[in-house]
Formats: sequence, C-alpha cells, structure tokens
Amino acid sequence: MPKKKTLSYAQSGVSIDANDDMVVRIAQSLHSTYSPRVIRLDNGFAGLFRLDSDAKLFKRNYKKPVLVACTDGVGTKILIAQKAGVFGKIGIDLVAMSVNDMLVQGAEPLFFLDYLAINKLEPAKVAEMVESIAEGCRIAGCALIGGETAEMPDIYGKGEYDLAGFAVGVVERNRVITGKDVKCGDVVLGLASSGIHSNGYSLVRHICFKQEKLKLDTTFKELGGRTLGSVLLEPTRIYVRPVVALLNSYKSKPPVHAMAHITGGGLVGNIPRVLPANCNAELNVKSWPAPPIFKFLQKRGPVTKTEMFRVFNMGIGFVLVVAKDAADVVQDKLTQSGETVYRIGRITAGTGKVVLK
Amino acid sequence: MPKKKTLSYAQSGVSIDANDDMVVRIAQSLHSTYSPRVIRLDNGFAGLFRLDSDAKLFKRNYKKPVLVACTDGVGTKILIAQKAGVFGKIGIDLVAMSVNDMLVQGAEPLFFLDYLAINKLEPAKVAEMVESIAEGCRIAGCALIGGETAEMPDIYGKGEYDLAGFAVGVVERNRVITGKDVKCGDVVLGLASSGIHSNGYSLVRHICFKQEKLKLDTTFKELGGRTLGSVLLEPTRIYVRPVVALLNSYKSKPPVHAMAHITGGGLVGNIPRVLPANCNAELNVKSWPAPPIFKFLQKRGPVTKTEMFRVFNMGIGFVLVVAKDAADVVQDKLTQSGETVYRIGRITAGTGKVVLK
Repeated sequence: MPKKKTLSYAQSGVSIDANDDMVVRIAQSLHSTYSPRVIRLDNGFAGLFRLDSDAKLFKRNYKKPVLVACTDGVGTKILIAQKAGVFGKIGIDLVAMSVNDMLVQGAEPLFFLDYLAINKLEPAKVAEMVESIAEGCRIAGCALIGGETAEMPDIYGKGEYDLAGFAVGVVERNRVITGKDVKCGDVVLGLASSGIHSNGYSLVRHICFKQEKLKLDTTFKELGGRTLGSVLLEPTRIYVRPVVALLNSYKSKPPVHAMAHITGGGLVGNIPRVLPANCNAELNVKSWPAPPIFKFLQKRGPVTKTEMFRVFNMGIGFVLVVAKDAADVVQDKLTQSGETVYRIGRITAGTGKVVLK
Repeated sequence: MPKKKTLSYAQSGVSIDANDDMVVRIAQSLHSTYSPRVIRLDNGFAGLFRLDSDAKLFKRNYKKPVLVACTDGVGTKILIAQKAGVFGKIGIDLVAMSVNDMLVQGAEPLFFLDYLAINKLEPAKVAEMVESIAEGCRIAGCALIGGETAEMPDIYGKGEYDLAGFAVGVVERNRVITGKDVKCGDVVLGLASSGIHSNGYSLVRHICFKQEKLKLDTTFKELGGRTLGSVLLEPTRIYVRPVVALLNSYKSKPPVHAMAHITGGGLVGNIPRVLPANCNAELNVKSWPAPPIFKFLQKRGPVTKTEMFRVFNMGIGFVLVVAKDAADVVQDKLTQSGETVYRIGRITAGTGKVVLK
C-alpha cells in the first residue's frame, strides 16, 4: 500500500520507516550544530531553543529582544545541482539565503529549520543534504533544530527535489538596523561574493544550456580552468560571523547605518530597499573586480551591462552603508575577519536609487 | 528572457514584477494577522517580532523564554487540493500542522512564515493561498510575518505547487511539557478532529482515485450528503486557542502531563512519543465516534482496523494526558472553549505503547 513517508527529524528516533544509517547520520549532523542553548528532546514534536534573556550563562543578554525570521529557497540553482547529481553544497546556499537576509536588520541567527521535498527518500542522499545544511549552520553559528523530509513522488519527478529554509534570529530592539540613519556622505562598503550565489539561475540556465548547450563537466580557461559545474555550484558566501562580530564590537550604537544582502535584483534592486527616499547610492563599478563567471555569461548571452547588474550580484554579495569617519575602521575589522572588502561608493542626495558610475 | 520571479512578501512594496492587486491583497491578509508585537518594516529583508520579555505592554512576560519551532508541509493532501483546483483552505492545514505540533510542548505560537513554490505565479491564486494561510494564523492567534513565493516552472508542472510552513512560539522554561510527569492512573482526553486532517492522503488517493475512480464532486449518503472533495479537503482543526487558554488558566504548573498531535502514525504512533518507557496508554476505541469518512475508506479499501489506526487520526486530532483528579475540570474548560472532548483512555504500567481496547 503506498504511503507517504515523512521523517520529522525531531521524531527520527521512533520512525519505523527510517533507515537506521540515515537516522544516525542526520543526528550527527544536527548535533554538530547544537550549542548549550538547544534543549534536546528525543522524539519531541518541536525544536526547543533557550532565549534566556535573564541568564548569565550566555555572553549576550537581551533587554528587549526582537525576533527576526526569514524564509527562502535556493531558486533554480537547485536544477543545476540536480543536473550535476549533487546533494551536498546546496544546503549551504539554503542557509545563506535566509541568514544573510536577517543579518541585514542587525540580527544574529539563532536556529534554522529545513523542509526537503523529494521524489524518493534515498537515505544516503538525504543524509548528504542534511549534512550540507548543517555545514551552512555551523558557518553561520546557528543550530539546526528541526526539519521535515517529505517523499512525494506524485509531485516531484525522478531525481527532483525542492528545499525551503527558515531562520530565526534575535536583535536588541534599539539595535535593529533599518536604514533610517543613512545620510549623505556615508560610505558604501561591499563584501566580495563567491560567485553567482543563489540568484539569476534561470538566466544562467538559459544561456549555458538552452542556448550554448554547455556541459557541467567541461573546464574553461576563462573560469580559471575550473569546470562550469563547480563554478555554478560554488556555495553562497555566509556573512554572519564577520558582520555580527563587527556589530558586537561596538558597545553603543554601531556606525553601520544600513546593510543589504545582494540577491535577485542585484545591487540596483536591493540597496534601495534600505535607502531613505532622499538619498542615492553612487557606486563606482570599477572599484571591485567581478568574478570571471560574470564576463563568461555576459559575453555568451550576450547580456547588457544594465541587465547583468539587475540580475546578478556582480561580485558583491553584501553591502554595508557606514558613517564616513568610521569607514576605515569598519573595513579593517571586516578584513581581519577574513572578508574581502571594497569601498564601492558613497551616499549622495537623490531619490532612493542606485546610480552606477 | 526567462527570469525567476520571486516575491518576498517583506519586499513586495518594491517588487517591479509583482502584480499590484496581488501585493495589496497579500498585504491585507498579512496585516489581518498582526498584533502590536509585529514591527512593521516596509521593504525589510526579514520579519520582526517583539518578544519583549520585560515589557508591561503584553499580558505575559517571560522569565526564561524557550523558543519552540516547527516546520511541516501538508503532504499529499496538496494533490487533492490541486485536483479540485482549490487554492484556499489548504493554508489552514499548513498552519495547523506546525502550530498543533508546537502546542504539544506547551508553547503558544507567536508567528508563522510560509514557502510557496509554484508552476506559475497567478496573482489571484497566490493571494487566495496567502489569505488561507492568514486565516489559519488568525485561528491560531499568530502573526504571518513573512513568506516566499517562488515561481519554478521547471520543477513544478502546470497547476502544481508545494507549500511549506514554519512556526515559532514561546514557552516559559519551567512550563515546557515533555511527558516526563506522566504516571499510571492519568486520564487520556481526546479532542475531536474535523476529519482526516493532513495525514494519510497517499492511502486516501490510492483508495478513492486509483482503485475506486471516484470523483471529487460526487455526493455520498454515507458522508452526510457532502461531496467527497469537501470532506477530503475539510481543514485540519487548530487546537491552539483552547489548549493555550487551558494552560494559562493555571498560575502554577498545569495538571497536563503530556500532549500529542495526532498526525502520520495515528494515535498508536504519536502518543508513544510522549510516554515514559514504563507506561502504556490504554485507549477504549468505542469511547468516541469516528467521522463517517473513516468507515467510508475502511470499507472501500478494504483496510484493516489496525492499519486504519496506524495511518489515520480516526476522529481524535489532539490528545492530552492529565492528572486523574484534574480530568473533569480540564474536560470542562476545553468544552467551554468549544472543543468536543472525549475521555478516551488511561495510563497503565507498560512499555511505552498504545493498547487499543
């Protein structure tokens, strides 16, 4: 008799249908992300996380905690992963999409949950996927406290799956970053992306496969001798640790007036989301190098420069708008945390737009 | 040029691709769920919710708040909704699956986010879906503070979509309900389900469509003259308000020792998740009436009684294990909140199992 097989990770200990090996491997992945704040509850119906606003145990106490929540998938990058038969890596993208978003408001991620819908529950593949999500959580410093795997052969074709991720974080109320303090003269800093990240893949697929009939395992000199697949599946950079460390290094209000996660819409689409209506962000597009994959795609399209900047991050995955006199210090701190930081522009009087120079 | 269209609800105000009508309707649905604790942030990258553990504004302050998180989809009930061309209603199921789960640990839901992946972003249908999710949130008393709609025609076929939901709640640390206090003599109370809820639909589809070739718009005398479709798509009952009111009615520890949300695995699969290893739950299956749809399915299968109890809730959607001397009062309180409550069994010495009598 056909039955829906689902595995709630929280209840994996009692799942009569679950493969033992998978259960053990998933448990190891989950536990690798746990902090003392996770309350372990075998067979529980939910994931439990201590906020403990009055506890001395944790380095940070919250007076007026604001919970910050995000959800996202990985878009059609998932189709490249499926084409490549890859079940790992893409989990890092999943975590990145949500945690980089919440970081924009100044929040530090606390925990993450995932939803994996799949044609067929193959234990080794599911375990690889969950480990990849756990890896993203370790990079972001958050706990993977729950998830759901749903086997639905009538919705997902052979080898097909979809992923959704949910992240919750916290920020002290008077430290929520909204962009309201942005003013003329502020400096725009850009953090290097690792490549395409998780947006623009419908255009990537159109150019590379529908139009050019390229193969994922072909190496290209223009891509530094890497295979197209490895470049296209390069995981999204997670900016949480360096940016949270930066914000926490200021006891009073940090000089960071706004941040933006550069996703669909690119720099021109995302920076305006945090700009006051009377400011522009003027960006000098020659102030940072775009990774080779962007020239590769632009040439083969061909795609106009305007469209490239509307679809892709073009080498900048995260943006900080900082007070002018603090820009050097902020740049130094982020560089010391391992980020590649570019001073990509400045805030001018305007109408809430990005101007590319 | 084909592009991935996504609509982050939070950014809907600036989405150049979004249909204006949809944006307005979605905003109305979201706002209908907001409490003063939601911090509105137009164009924000994330949803913000005040926990405010030290605020006088809210009726309940948390000393040691534990955040509780759940994620779930609606399984293959979604295929029935698709077959029926229904975009509403199923959102209530989505919310129910997660919030009833977190309720088990004693948590009250605070907010919800959804992920909707769809073949084609049709504004009216998406708006109907979001309103249905918002309706579930209003029933559960939680805020719909974010969501993602991803149009992915290369994964989802025409008319196909998938839904994932994510709920976060809070419970005071010393009021987390885990089942550890369950003891012999405790009474098992069952809250009536509205029907099949959101589990067992692969078996339902097998019987009704693959085997019997029934039609969704046919009415059946055995189903009280209702159409099969309306019975199969009856939304999952959300137990949050009556159960939270019950728990909050006790200033000190409530006499509720364990709860279980009856999902896949039925009573026999879910109650053991909260039973101590030395206890059984003895249920008298004649102590409550099963809704007619279960007899309908069992007869047509045919399905054994054992299998029916392993797959379906059989009329009980939520279970509370309560101290014997408090059972009458608890039953009264839940009844006064509008629940249909049955005394379905008791806790005996045993091995962590459910015994059907």
